[in-house]
Amino acid sequence: MKNKSLLSINDYSKEEHIQILDHAEKFEKKPIQNLLNGYVIATLFFEPSTRTRLSFESAISRLGGRVIGFADSSSSSVSKGETLKDTILTVSNYADLIVMRHPKEGSARYASEVSPVPIINAGDGANQHPTQCLLDMYSIRKTQGTLNDIKIAFVGDLKYGRTVHSLVIALCNFNTEFHFVSPPSLKLPNSIKRHIKKNNLSFQEYYELDNILPIADIIYMTRIQQERFSDPIEYERVKNVYKLTPDLIENTKENMKIMHPLPRVNEIVESVDESSKAYYFTQALNGVYVRQALLTSILGKI
Amino acid sequence: MKNKSLLSINDYSKEEHIQILDHAEKFEKKPIQNLLNGYVIATLFFEPSTRTRLSFESAISRLGGRVIGFADSSSSSVSKGETLKDTILTVSNYADLIVMRHPKEGSARYASEVSPVPIINAGDGANQHPTQCLLDMYSIRKTQGTLNDIKIAFVGDLKYGRTVHSLVIALCNFNTEFHFVSPPSLKLPNSIKRHIKKNNLSFQEYYELDNILPIADIIYMTRIQQERFSDPIEYERVKNVYKLTPDLIENTKENMKIMHPLPRVNEIVESVDESSKAYYFTQALNGVYVRQALLTSILGKI
Amino acid sequence: MKNKSLLSINDYSKEEHIQILDHAEKFEKKPIQNLLNGYVIATLFFEPSTRTRLSFESAISRLGGRVIGFADSSSSSVSKGETLKDTILTVSNYADLIVMRHPKEGSARYASEVSPVPIINAGDGANQHPTQCLLDMYSIRKTQGTLNDIKIAFVGDLKYGRTVHSLVIALCNFNTEFHFVSPPSLKLPNSIKRHIKKNNLSFQEYYELDNILPIADIIYMTRIQQERFSDPIEYERVKNVYKLTPDLIENTKENMKIMHPLPRVNEIVESVDESSKAYYFTQALNGVYVRQALLTSILGKI
Repeated sequence: MKNKSLLSINDYSKEEHIQILDHAEKFEKKPIQNLLNGYVIATLFFEPSTRTRLSFESAISRLGGRVIGFADSSSSSVSKGETLKDTILTVSNYADLIVMRHPKEGSARYASEVSPVPIINAGDGANQHPTQCLLDMYSIRKTQGTLNDIKIAFVGDLKYGRTVHSLVIALCNFNTEFHFVSPPSLKLPNSIKRHIKKNNLSFQEYYELDNILPIADIIYMTRIQQERFSDPIEYERVKNVYKLTPDLIENTKENMKIMHPLPRVNEIVESVDESSKAYYFTQALNGVYVRQALLTSILGKI
Repeated sequence: MKNKSLLSINDYSKEEHIQILDHAEKFEKKPIQNLLNGYVIATLFFEPSTRTRLSFESAISRLGGRVIGFADSSSSSVSKGETLKDTILTVSNYADLIVMRHPKEGSARYASEVSPVPIINAGDGANQHPTQCLLDMYSIRKTQGTLNDIKIAFVGDLKYGRTVHSLVIALCNFNTEFHFVSPPSLKLPNSIKRHIKKNNLSFQEYYELDNILPIADIIYMTRIQQERFSDPIEYERVKNVYKLTPDLIENTKENMKIMHPLPRVNEIVESVDESSKAYYFTQALNGVYVRQALLTSILGKI
Repeated sequence: MKNKSLLSINDYSKEEHIQILDHAEKFEKKPIQNLLNGYVIATLFFEPSTRTRLSFESAISRLGGRVIGFADSSSSSVSKGETLKDTILTVSNYADLIVMRHPKEGSARYASEVSPVPIINAGDGANQHPTQCLLDMYSIRKTQGTLNDIKIAFVGDLKYGRTVHSLVIALCNFNTEFHFVSPPSLKLPNSIKRHIKKNNLSFQEYYELDNILPIADIIYMTRIQQERFSDPIEYERVKNVYKLTPDLIENTKENMKIMHPLPRVNEIVESVDESSKAYYFTQALNGVYVRQALLTSILGKI
C-alpha cells in the first residue's frame, strides 16, 4: 500500500482491507510511539468535523508525527478564490501526506491526481468515507470474531449515507446477509443493489425495524435528516419508528452490537448507551487504531 | 490527585492547593521537558479564549505532550446538533485528558460525570475557572512570600466575575483580610459572603477605591462590562472611579502588586504597566507553571 | 541575527540576507530534525493565510519545535477588545518566538517594540512580508545560479503588492535590471523608484507584456484584484493582457522561470503549470527551507 492514496474503499483489495485490520489489531494491543517521528501530515478540513479530524490527529500524535492544517476553510486561502489544485500542490510541499475532507464529490480523487504526496479521503460529500468503512469493518470483526457470514441491518437514510454505501460494498467480499430498513424515499440506491447481486449475495428491504431485530448480528443505525423529506408527516412517522430504545433491543441476539457512524441526534435514545450492546463509542475508538495502521502502511513504516 | 478531575476550586483541599503550588515552583525553577511524552491532551474550547487555551497548549508542549482539539465550536460536530455527552464520550477515546471551556455553567461537571478520562474546567460560564484561581494563588504566594494574612482588595465586577468568586473561596483557608470595591449593582453575592463568615473571617465593602489603596498587599482588578448596567450614568461614574493610574498607585505599599485575570479593557491605564507594582503579565506566565503542575499531577507523572 | 526580530526586509543587511540563503541551502540538502526540540513558537494570524501559516508550521514541526496560536482572530481574546500590546505581552509568556500576520501596516514593528521575544512579520497589511522576500531571493539564486545581474520583470499590481516592494528593495543590492509591467493605475510607487535610482540602477515601465518576455530571466507575476479598478472597462482590458499562456512563454529564455507569491486567480492559466518554466509551486517549497534557516538563526540554534 506504500504511497497509495485511499480515495474510495474500492481502491484497496479485500486482502489489503484485511491487512489494514490486522495492523490495526497490533496497534490496539501494543502502542508504538515513534513510528512517525519526523513526519508532517496535513489535515485539510474544508468542512467541519470533530470526530474524524481529532481521530486522525490523535492517531498521528500517538505515533510521534506532526499535524498542520485547518479545521475550516474560512481560515484558508480558499477564501481568496484559490483552486483546490493550487491548494493541494502548495500543501504537498509542506507535508508528507494529506488527509482531506471536502464537500464536493470526487474532490479527493481529483486532489490525488495532482498531488505528489498520497491523499487520504476523510469524506467527499455524499460519496465516500473509506476510513470510516475500515473502522466499521474492524468493529464488526472485533465483536463478532469474523467478517464472514454476518447478518447486518442498515437502518435510516440509506440513500445519502456515504458510510452505508462504502460498508455494503466492502462487505460484499465476505458472504454477508444484508437487511435494509428505510423509508421509501431513502432506500439504498440501485447501483449498490446491483453490486450486491453481482456478488451473488441476497438482500431484503423493510420499512419497519421489528422483523430484523431478532436476527441481526449488527444493527447499523444512521442519522435521518428532516431536510430529506418533502412530506413532513412522513418524517414524523419515520422518526419514531427508527428510534432504538432499551425495550426494542431486549429481544435481540446476545452478542448483537449497535453501531453508528456518529454524530447521532435522536435515533438511539441515551438510555441505550448503558447496554453492553451499544458499541458506537468503542467503534469511534477503533478509528484511532485503523488510522494508525493506514498512515503507517501508506508511509511505508510498517 | 491522580485521575481526579478539576471542576471547581473546592474539589481540591487546601493541602492539594499547596501541593500544586509547590510543584509549580519546581517547574518554574527548572523546566522538565519529557514528562508528558506520548500523551495526547484535548483542548475543547466551545467559546473563544487566547490566554487560557494558549497557556495550556504551551504547558503541554513544553512537557512533550501533544494537543488536539478546537478553538471554536463552529468547526466541530456540535454544529450538527451533537450533545455534550456524545462529544465528550467520543473525544475521550482520542485523548488522555480533556481541558474544556464551555459557556454553560455546570457543563464541566456534567462532562466529568460521563467521561472516562479526567476533565479540567477551563471556565464554565460565570461559574468556575479553577486553574485561574490556582495561578492567582501562586502569584500571591510568590510576590508576598506567603498566602497567610494577606490584605487583598477585589475591584470591579464582583457579582459576575468567576475568578473573584473562586479566589475568595480558596483564600478563606489562609486567614485573609478581604476588601471588596464595586458599584452597588455589582457587589459580591451573598453566598460568597456567607462562606467568608463561616470561616470566621471579616470583610469590608466599598464603593470607592481611595481608602483601600494604602493598606492592600494585592489589588485584584477586574473588567467591568458596560452591558451590566441598566443606568448608563451609573456606568460613566464608575468607569472612571475604578481606573488605576500611576498617580493612584503612588500611595500604596512598596511590595503591593496589581493583579488582573486579563483581558483588560481600560480599568488599568497603559502607563501603569511600567511600574514594578504591575504584575498582571507575569501572573499570566505563572499560569504555565501551574498548569504544568496540574497536568502532571492528574496524569500521575509527578 | 540572534534574537533579532524580522519586520522589514531592510532590518537585515545584504550579508545577513545571503547568510539566511546559505543556511536555507543546507536545510534543503540535508534535513536536521531536532534543532528546535523544546521550543514553542506562536503563530498569530489575525487574518487568514494557508500558505504562510502552514509553511511556518511545517518548518517548525520538521525541526522538532512546537506550535501554538490561532489561524483567525475571531477565536481569540481580540474579540473581547484586547489591545495588540496586551495580546503580545501575554503570548510572549507562552512562546519563545512569535510569528504574526496582521491587517494593519506597522503592527509587527509595534509588536516588536513591546515584546520580550523576537517577532517575525508574516505580513502586515500592504506593507511588508519579508520571509516571502527571502524565499523569492532563494528561488532566484537557486534557478539562476546567482543573484547578480538578473533581468527581472514584475507584472500586475505593483502599487499594492507588498511582495513586489520588498523584493525590489532587496534586489537593489545585486545590480538587478528591473522591468515593471502594470496598468497605469497600478504602477510602482515613487518611493520605491527613488530607492532604485539611489542605488544607481535603472528600470523601465511598460503597460504591455510583449516586449519584456524575450529578455527576462525571471517573470514575477502578481494577482490583480478587480476591486482596485474604478473603471470596469480598464479592468477587463488589463485582465487579459496580463494572463500568461503557454503560447506567450514559448518565446522566452530557456532558463527563464515564472514566479508568483500565490494564491493566483487567473493571471497564469493552468496549462502553464506543465512547463519547466513554471516555478511557483517549487518557490512555495523553498519557503520551508528559508523559514527553517530564519527560525534557527533568530533562536541561536545555527
